[in-house]
Amino acid sequence: MGIVIRDALAVLPCSGTGEGAPSTPSAQVSRHTIYIEDDRISGIDARPEHFSEDTVIDGKDRLVIPGLINAHTHTYMSMMRNCADDLSFMDWLFKRVDPIEGRLTGEDAYWASLLSQIEMIRSGTTTFNDMQMHIHQTTRAVRESGMRAVICRGLVGDSYDRGDVRLNEALEEMEDGKDCGRLTFLLGPHAPYTCGPDYLRMVADVAKEKGLGIHIHLSESVSELENMRRDHGCTPIGYAMKAGVFDVPVIAAHCVQLEGDDISILAENGVSVVTNPASNMKLGNGFAPVPELLQAGVNVCIGTDGAASNNAQNLFREMGHLALIHKGTHRTPQCVGAQEVFHAATGAGADALHLDTGSIEVGKKADLAILRTDCASMMPTNNLLAALCYSADGSETDTVIIDGRIVMHGRELKTIDEERVYAEMRRMQERLGL
Amino acid sequence: MGIVIRDALAVLPCSGTGEGAPSTPSAQVSRHTIYIEDDRISGIDARPEHFSEDTVIDGKDRLVIPGLINAHTHTYMSMMRNCADDLSFMDWLFKRVDPIEGRLTGEDAYWASLLSQIEMIRSGTTTFNDMQMHIHQTTRAVRESGMRAVICRGLVGDSYDRGDVRLNEALEEMEDGKDCGRLTFLLGPHAPYTCGPDYLRMVADVAKEKGLGIHIHLSESVSELENMRRDHGCTPIGYAMKAGVFDVPVIAAHCVQLEGDDISILAENGVSVVTNPASNMKLGNGFAPVPELLQAGVNVCIGTDGAASNNAQNLFREMGHLALIHKGTHRTPQCVGAQEVFHAATGAGADALHLDTGSIEVGKKADLAILRTDCASMMPTNNLLAALCYSADGSETDTVIIDGRIVMHGRELKTIDEERVYAEMRRMQERLGL
Repeated sequence: MGIVIRDALAVLPCSGTGEGAPSTPSAQVSRHTIYIEDDRISGIDARPEHFSEDTVIDGKDRLVIPGLINAHTHTYMSMMRNCADDLSFMDWLFKRVDPIEGRLTGEDAYWASLLSQIEMIRSGTTTFNDMQMHIHQTTRAVRESGMRAVICRGLVGDSYDRGDVRLNEALEEMEDGKDCGRLTFLLGPHAPYTCGPDYLRMVADVAKEKGLGIHIHLSESVSELENMRRDHGCTPIGYAMKAGVFDVPVIAAHCVQLEGDDISILAENGVSVVTNPASNMKLGNGFAPVPELLQAGVNVCIGTDGAASNNAQNLFREMGHLALIHKGTHRTPQCVGAQEVFHAATGAGADALHLDTGSIEVGKKADLAILRTDCASMMPTNNLLAALCYSADGSETDTVIIDGRIVMHGRELKTIDEERVYAEMRRMQERLGL
Repeated sequence: MGIVIRDALAVLPCSGTGEGAPSTPSAQVSRHTIYIEDDRISGIDARPEHFSEDTVIDGKDRLVIPGLINAHTHTYMSMMRNCADDLSFMDWLFKRVDPIEGRLTGEDAYWASLLSQIEMIRSGTTTFNDMQMHIHQTTRAVRESGMRAVICRGLVGDSYDRGDVRLNEALEEMEDGKDCGRLTFLLGPHAPYTCGPDYLRMVADVAKEKGLGIHIHLSESVSELENMRRDHGCTPIGYAMKAGVFDVPVIAAHCVQLEGDDISILAENGVSVVTNPASNMKLGNGFAPVPELLQAGVNVCIGTDGAASNNAQNLFREMGHLALIHKGTHRTPQCVGAQEVFHAATGAGADALHLDTGSIEVGKKADLAILRTDCASMMPTNNLLAALCYSADGSETDTVIIDGRIVMHGRELKTIDEERVYAEMRRMQERLGL
């Protein structure tokens, strides 16, 4: 299988770190021809030896970007989209989300995950990091959709309360990834406030022993911080460190309420932070200190969080939020610029998830989104890197290639039967009385 | 000409003020058939006598909303999109925007206004309020596009510095609206910091004499507030009041930096405020006190501002920002909910601009956007009013009707030659070296 994208503008890495924070690599837009063989980018401009094209994509009026990486979501929650809004966090969780979640079947989770994946593919996302309840159904959906996914089972409880059973189940469920190069797994202790200290340590120990990374929620809300200080005399970051969580590679969602040494602990331990701007605003949690994290050299990526607290799975919206909100809170228009936002949505996510993707370079996995530039939101094409953050809404995405396979072309999905997914959503909505 | 939209979900006003601020009317989603004759909605569910349909639009999987109202923009600025980002306000204005603006011809402004209008129509906006430099070229573009527009010439200077000449020219330019029911005019003194006190009073006096409203920028930046305090011992709001600006109907953009009695002055004088969340964040000006303005009963509408400081003309992005940022700054998930955001983007704009549109009611102007609901971002259709604020990106807009005329159907524009506009943009970009 050979795909060539001929003579297109593309966002490629460039030398230097540009105007962004010290740790942010730079990217620039220039015109290239890109060759894809099997699951990899095999050439840029220089045609690889023995390359034979099955598919040629004309690059006229197109911008090729690395597929976006949604570094924190819960794909099964899209069926709860817009059924729990403008509510206090407690009402949101206990009156709406929890009761619905309790009635979801595995089959529901399968269709809802496909719904999230449709929305992600249509807005240029090629990889997602999913904290889940229904692993078998999610991996089934990923195998079909063609997306790249990093999956963990959300683990809650105590070591004595069948927590070890759930941990063992989670380890067994990783067998689902066998023979699928697009699936990898993490361990997912949900959060310090839902995992007892012994349990968190047990999960961290098993992660270390098995060579697994950890995906966890940290310091999302003020009440989480206050309760942790009251009950354990430390911040959630300190609590996780003491439990040994940071002894393995960690991707930590939120990190909104940071105090004292928290930022330096995250930096020193190489923890990757996923900021979820819409979700943090929507639930009234505020704004993560992203400029300060970047300044400290922390690897910051972006996530949508689940659709029940966003309510979209469109990473272009999050890129827009990330580029704007910190300028607003810091009253500084240079704060968190396009270079930093682009890196957060691409390379930073790949680094955090230890994936060989996130940039357009020879040898990398062929995960690409091809956007139209002949549309009102991208015209005139003055600075297309800025356009990705400040102008695009995601619907500019025309073609998506994941692992060297075209999963959408001309906005037509090649892997998922959209009509069927929507029909299942209507049935589920009726059954659950949403 | 009769158009019928058959059996569609539609957002209609309902009794009560719902959960929103005291002054916010409620809307709800229910299923209706809508009849349009000439430029008006002539029936809802009840077929008007002697109605004859030329066009039937099937409402299956569609949501009909009042066309959105972009209450503050500068349409000619879209050609400066993404050429002045991540810069300090002074560098943005004096190093980038001003030099380019000085080289723009009227013909450039015409094409750039059409570009903005393409983006607005494609994202469900039917009316815009434009502060302009090139009136003839803008009214020409509006006549062609079919949009509804309120236009003012931006007036700057002093009464003795040919300010009166420009004011007279602005009055003459209003002749452009003759015989076009979609065009109305305001007087546009740019801002207190660009209009001397005598000149501001002169414009206010002429507005009163001619029965015209005023469109003005007020209290956008901290430096504007500080300079005004230093030079005149009052806030920009106080300054405008003393100059007599509030003696006529006023639509005031920004109102970010409010102090002391500012909010009650705005409320008592019936001033409508346009919040421009993206622009205010992007230029580092912060967040307007929208919850406090709503609480005081001020009519708050939404604008995109010009594309040089946003960088989009898509009101769905602004609805999303408005629904999220105040929850973030106030750490309260109930702050500025979907009802308030929807009203700000529709009825509030119509009230501010004294237009007979902004809601789906018999007798109102037929300005409607019809969105697809059979797409990933709107599925499942749990609460479509929330979906408009939290999930939609604007690309769900399928059909747009303005003044009873279909200007887009199946995402195909009926009034503007998009390819031609993009070709002109490429030429302009090259000529201006952007």
